[in-house]
Amino acid sequence: MQRVTNCILINDDKVLLIKKPRRGWYAMPGGKMEQGESIKESAVREFREETELELIDPILSGIFTFTIYNNHTMVQEWMMFTFICQTYTGMLTDYCREGELEWVSRHAINDLPMAEGDRKIFEHALFSDKMLYGSFQYTEDYRLIDCRLDPSSS
Amino acid sequence: MQRVTNCILINDDKVLLIKKPRRGWYAMPGGKMEQGESIKESAVREFREETELELIDPILSGIFTFTIYNNHTMVQEWMMFTFICQTYTGMLTDYCREGELEWVSRHAINDLPMAEGDRKIFEHALFSDKMLYGSFQYTEDYRLIDCRLDPSSS
Repeated sequence: MQRVTNCILINDDKVLLIKKPRRGWYAMPGGKMEQGESIKESAVREFREETELELIDPILSGIFTFTIYNNHTMVQEWMMFTFICQTYTGMLTDYCREGELEWVSRHAINDLPMAEGDRKIFEHALFSDKMLYGSFQYTEDYRLIDCRLDPSSS
Repeated sequence: MQRVTNCILINDDKVLLIKKPRRGWYAMPGGKMEQGESIKESAVREFREETELELIDPILSGIFTFTIYNNHTMVQEWMMFTFICQTYTGMLTDYCREGELEWVSRHAINDLPMAEGDRKIFEHALFSDKMLYGSFQYTEDYRLIDCRLDPSSS
């Protein structure tokens, strides 16, 4: 089972996002856990590899189960662990092979193209300190079919 | 990949544990996540199935990666999500097919037989509000080879 860790890094009013080339969608920098890593070790390593920034004391913000459906058949299940962080060291890299890195005003995030589930995660994480637990059901081309969130979105 | 959720339920000075028949070791009630569940849904369902108690507002306390080794070869990797909870409804079942349920004084837990990693989890969770991130390496007969904990134990 694939496990992905990522982090919402906030600096003043801005959030560091990555624009992925495939669909032009924005996402949190991060990537796949490696064997034997804790989720926090993975989030720090992945963020460093993509941005050259070192996260200082990232806090777990949400844990999500993703199930991917082809018609009514579940074809894939994976998990995502999303941290949030307000402190870092280092200089942002000029080049990231995974996409374009961009500091975005937190109030502009809702207008960006992204996976619908990620939009719900941002809506929660940027305005609440509570841990978010969720389960998202997507089609194979990443249309959101349904989701359950706890706490449920307002 | 196997994913296990469980919960440390505290009532006054006592913690509800389950004594597993195989080794006589104590553990937190819980079990395997099912397809599409969030980790919180799984923890609540598993606790209900084993104890007939309904957890009220369990809080995530720790997330752990387990890697199991045969000599120097990693033969299995799984994850565990441990909640902590102080409120519940319902009456404890007389019979649990997974083992014997027992309320144990929190100060007696350290003297019980259990997996060494679980002992470290209890030491942290019962005396700290901070989330614990960890990675445990075990042999196939559950001897702890090594672990990394964040925050590290005192």
